[in-house]
Amino acid sequence: RELSVEEVKASTPLTIKYVIIGGGTAAYFAAVGVRRKDKAAPILLISRESEAPYARPSLSKELWFRPIAEYSPSAALSYADWAGKERNAVFQSKEQYCTADDLRRGEPCVGLLSNTTVVDLDVANRKLTLDNGQVVHFEKCLIATGGRPRSLPIIEQAPAQARQHITLYRSIDDFRKLDGISRSVQSVAIIGGGFLGSELSIALAARGKALNGIHVTQVIQERGVLAKVLPGYLCDWTTQMVQEQGVEVLTASSITAIDHKDGKVVLDVKKGDQHSQLAVDHVIVAVGLDPNVELAKKANLELDPVKGGILVNAELEARSGIYAAGDVASFYDVVLGRRREEHHDHAVVSGRLAGENMAGERKHYSHQSFFWSDLGPAVGFEAIGLIDSTLETVSVWARNSNLAPSQQPADQTAAQQTPQQSGDGVAASRQATKDFGKGVVFYLRGKQVVGVVTWNLPDKIPIARRIIREAKTHDNFSQLAALFKVNAAKKTA
Amino acid sequence: RELSVEEVKASTPLTIKYVIIGGGTAAYFAAVGVRRKDKAAPILLISRESEAPYARPSLSKELWFRPIAEYSPSAALSYADWAGKERNAVFQSKEQYCTADDLRRGEPCVGLLSNTTVVDLDVANRKLTLDNGQVVHFEKCLIATGGRPRSLPIIEQAPAQARQHITLYRSIDDFRKLDGISRSVQSVAIIGGGFLGSELSIALAARGKALNGIHVTQVIQERGVLAKVLPGYLCDWTTQMVQEQGVEVLTASSITAIDHKDGKVVLDVKKGDQHSQLAVDHVIVAVGLDPNVELAKKANLELDPVKGGILVNAELEARSGIYAAGDVASFYDVVLGRRREEHHDHAVVSGRLAGENMAGERKHYSHQSFFWSDLGPAVGFEAIGLIDSTLETVSVWARNSNLAPSQQPADQTAAQQTPQQSGDGVAASRQATKDFGKGVVFYLRGKQVVGVVTWNLPDKIPIARRIIREAKTHDNFSQLAALFKVNAAKKTA
Ligand SMILES: Cc1cc2nc3c(=O)[nH]c(=O)nc-3n(C[C@H](O)[C@H](O)[C@H](O)COP(=O)(O)OP(=O)(O)OC[C@H]3O[C@@H](n4cnc5c(N)ncnc54)[C@H](O)[C@@H]3O)c2cc1C
Ligand SMILES: Cc1cc2nc3c(=O)[nH]c(=O)nc-3n(C[C@H](O)[C@H](O)[C@H](O)COP(=O)(O)OP(=O)(O)OC[C@H]3O[C@@H](n4cnc5c(N)ncnc54)[C@H](O)[C@@H]3O)c2cc1C
Ligand SMILES: NC(=O)c1ccc[n+]([C@@H]2O[C@H](COP(=O)([O-])OP(=O)(O)OC[C@H]3O[C@@H](n4cnc5c(N)ncnc54)[C@H](O)[C@@H]3O)[C@@H](O)[C@H]2O)c1
Ligand SMILES: NC(=O)c1ccc[n+]([C@@H]2O[C@H](COP(=O)([O-])OP(=O)(O)OC[C@H]3O[C@@H](n4cnc5c(N)ncnc54)[C@H](O)[C@@H]3O)[C@@H](O)[C@H]2O)c1
Repeated sequence: RELSVEEVKASTPLTIKYVIIGGGTAAYFAAVGVRRKDKAAPILLISRESEAPYARPSLSKELWFRPIAEYSPSAALSYADWAGKERNAVFQSKEQYCTADDLRRGEPCVGLLSNTTVVDLDVANRKLTLDNGQVVHFEKCLIATGGRPRSLPIIEQAPAQARQHITLYRSIDDFRKLDGISRSVQSVAIIGGGFLGSELSIALAARGKALNGIHVTQVIQERGVLAKVLPGYLCDWTTQMVQEQGVEVLTASSITAIDHKDGKVVLDVKKGDQHSQLAVDHVIVAVGLDPNVELAKKANLELDPVKGGILVNAELEARSGIYAAGDVASFYDVVLGRRREEHHDHAVVSGRLAGENMAGERKHYSHQSFFWSDLGPAVGFEAIGLIDSTLETVSVWARNSNLAPSQQPADQTAAQQTPQQSGDGVAASRQATKDFGKGVVFYLRGKQVVGVVTWNLPDKIPIARRIIREAKTHDNFSQLAALFKVNAAKKTA
Repeated sequence: RELSVEEVKASTPLTIKYVIIGGGTAAYFAAVGVRRKDKAAPILLISRESEAPYARPSLSKELWFRPIAEYSPSAALSYADWAGKERNAVFQSKEQYCTADDLRRGEPCVGLLSNTTVVDLDVANRKLTLDNGQVVHFEKCLIATGGRPRSLPIIEQAPAQARQHITLYRSIDDFRKLDGISRSVQSVAIIGGGFLGSELSIALAARGKALNGIHVTQVIQERGVLAKVLPGYLCDWTTQMVQEQGVEVLTASSITAIDHKDGKVVLDVKKGDQHSQLAVDHVIVAVGLDPNVELAKKANLELDPVKGGILVNAELEARSGIYAAGDVASFYDVVLGRRREEHHDHAVVSGRLAGENMAGERKHYSHQSFFWSDLGPAVGFEAIGLIDSTLETVSVWARNSNLAPSQQPADQTAAQQTPQQSGDGVAASRQATKDFGKGVVFYLRGKQVVGVVTWNLPDKIPIARRIIREAKTHDNFSQLAALFKVNAAKKTA
């Protein structure tokens, strides 16, 4: 059962061995990690949100593809996953957390204090202060405060009338609101070409087809969809695939002004020297994440000036007994160097590792996390390691894919591509055939594979993980790609 | 008594709670720090050097100014300090360290294993390997491996005959050798305008005056002596003061070739477009320090890509139970940010802090260390915080100094100088009078004082330390300088 602030207040001064700041994925799995190693001590999660911890991925994917029912602001957050299994975004319901009494008695349970913000962290004295003034003492503390959607000055300065029709998207609340909005509007603009902007574009276009024909325009400052992660040719192809799903994509375009006119938000879109006006009912801004580091900064913890976030070591520890995990942590990966990752599985893996270390393990980060995205039927990929389009890449593609099934013999992989900076032109001949149905992209530092994207090739991440962990140098990428059986299981479109 | 490798070997497998890698100043004071907090456990220092831990500052200062006696390769390392007190560079003699038997019995003593290099550190299994293959298990380990004099490609590629007459200077052995050499040579070139090059120039010029008239030429690639730390005008003035001590200083000059001819080392010195030849009996290279990070790198510890050294947090911890201190540590200063310091008192302060934390404290670095240098009778300064001539500086000088005693009324400080980038021209009027006898230089980030040099003003570092710790913004630097009583104790030249 959910704790109330009043209940916790009643037990001043509260002392809990393990305190976890944040109520997201990293926070939840940190509790799991602590419990793996310490069966006895109580754990307290303190979350600013009103929901119990949940996974965000379905908020821009599955939840939008459910059969369309009557709108309800409290609709369940369950959906069928890719294997048809019934899932819920929420990890466990509030009833499954323990009560204030349990905590006070020192029961080995996990308490959840929601709607509560930690406003102060005193590292030296191992205590923190809640927004109601309540002090909580701890032995070990995890900062898993994640991040919030970045805004832009132009958004902040937009007329109030326009701002009412602008959404920054991250939470279940945001999903519920946008679900409602999507049922009434005719046109939506989505600013941003990253994961969120692209996934929501596809989701809203699908909703439009199913319901009210919303016109979706995605405005991207880069050359296309996911330009920061995919090599150029693949970004171009993916952009086309997104367009085929009914999204109008404006590439190399930025917003230079926002106004409100005739009941519409009017965006001034600049492409090269050309300006055009885009009038829409609603705008979604998905221009990246700002890690929530204010608390850490106030506590004099070190921030990473390059990658942002709280600087922790390979064990995810910032100072003795103070850890950080998930989106907010800049951590040291012994194989790949300093990183900050903003993905679900990283929140799981790093949260769990931090939890285990809080409970006395001294393990360093070694299990590489992965991530995935889906953008319509032709584009589904998984990825692991450093996925950054400024790295050199080599890709190997199945000769026969669902898109051009008869053009190439099915039993050969494409010839090895020469590595090229940012991948442009790497697969020029392939680009002509638009044949990126199935393949592997290797991201390189010198001859070392530091990242792998498996494209429409499910369940191959463990192979990629092994390659990255080995940290060997490679010359023969066809051979390496053969491990992924690029041609084995023919995808049936 | 010194431990022999054989004795230690006899006790395989050796397990010592606290192991300190290195036998320098940071290592020695780490043992002091551990002992402050843990009265019971044995401590083992493992040092590559044959000497017991010692302080290096006198190696470029006091030891050169002792009355000149017969040369002896094993002469004592004692000297009188500025207050006339008898001192020895070595902290405690080998006899004062404990025996292998003491260690094996777990006596609360400090063992010293000298002439021994640690070649492998296994963080996960908390053990290290010595160069003889012996394994030592530990609970807590400090890496205090310091650094070695940097060399230059041009030195490494010089003819073997020339290289015989080139010294890289850091240890007691190096002092003893140079002491011998200085008694026979007629001319010496010193490459480098940093602390070591400048102090040794003064020392050898003094030796020349006292003994055999050695001609000392200092070749500096920057505009003058200590250009990287002192504001431009003060660097210029200091360069002149060094010249007045008999050192020929070649500024803005670099070495482009090294040869050996007629029994001399011949340096090709380039200044602007001009080349000249400098033929000397001996060359000393003092072009900075390379931190000894090889062991840490092999152990997969994170290195600081910007400042060099092993990256540790504010508690000087790299991974749980693994610490670094002294010259080799890049640490987080909660007030001033990430730093690596290469000075004696920092080795003392950080070594002691690491030791205390190894024994269970969780204190962050907060006591600012200081450093000092002396370059002849007119230049003696102490410094604390960030001392970097690329920072903005403001200086306040006593109107009346030993150099221009009657030019200005003695009871006023100079008008506050406007802050300027790198200090050039800041004290233009002063520069004309060459009146830098006594004063304070504030190094600024914005309006925050991040560093202070007290110039010929002894015992004022605690005041500067307080100003830095407060981290306040300042506008009135005359007022701030008044705290240092710049005009109070008139220096008698
Ligand atoms: C719509 C959407 C879809 C996504 N889809 C995918 C996907 O398909 N695949 C993928 O790999 N990743 C995906 N991600 C990214 C993934 O969800 C994040 O990486 C993950 O949520 C990070 O978890 P976290 O626990 O570090 O941070 P968060 O999930 O941001 O959780 C942080 C929590 O801390 C709380 N908090 C912050 N400050 C305080 C404070 N001072 N006191 C108390 N509480 C505080 C916040 O309110 C929040 O509840 C998606 C993200 C979004 C928004
Ligand atoms: C000539 C000279 C004069 C100086 N004067 C001043 C001064 O006036 N004021 C000032 O503030 N600073 C001065 N310094 C700087 C100051 O001496 C250094 O900052 C200080 O010595 C750093 O101490 P440390 O213990 O970190 O490193 P070090 O003194 O370098 O000690 C490191 C030790 O570790 C050993 N070691 C390295 N690797 C291994 C290994 N793998 N296994 C075993 N042992 C290993 C080394 O042999 C060495 O003994 C001077 C330096 C020199 C060279
Ligand atoms: N499948 C997934 O892993 C997934 C899915 C959804 C969301 N997320 C996460 O959610 C968070 C938010 O997603 P996101 O797409 O906003 O972030 P993102 O970092 O993936 O993409 C940011 C995008 O913002 C755009 N942008 C940046 N600055 C801009 C500016 N000044 N003007 C215009 N456009 C600008 C760029 O197009 C850039 O690609 C991220 O942490 C992301 O990783 C992940
Ligand atoms: N008083 C003191 O604190 C003191 C005294 C002596 C030594 N030390 C320490 O001993 C170490 C060695 O002293 P140092 O003077 O060599 O180092 P330093 O960092 O003080 O000075 C390095 C100098 O090397 C020169 N240099 C660098 N690269 C060069 C190149 N490619 N060609 C020519 N010149 C080049 C520059 O003149 C530069 O000022 C340092 O860690 C120093 O801090 C400190």
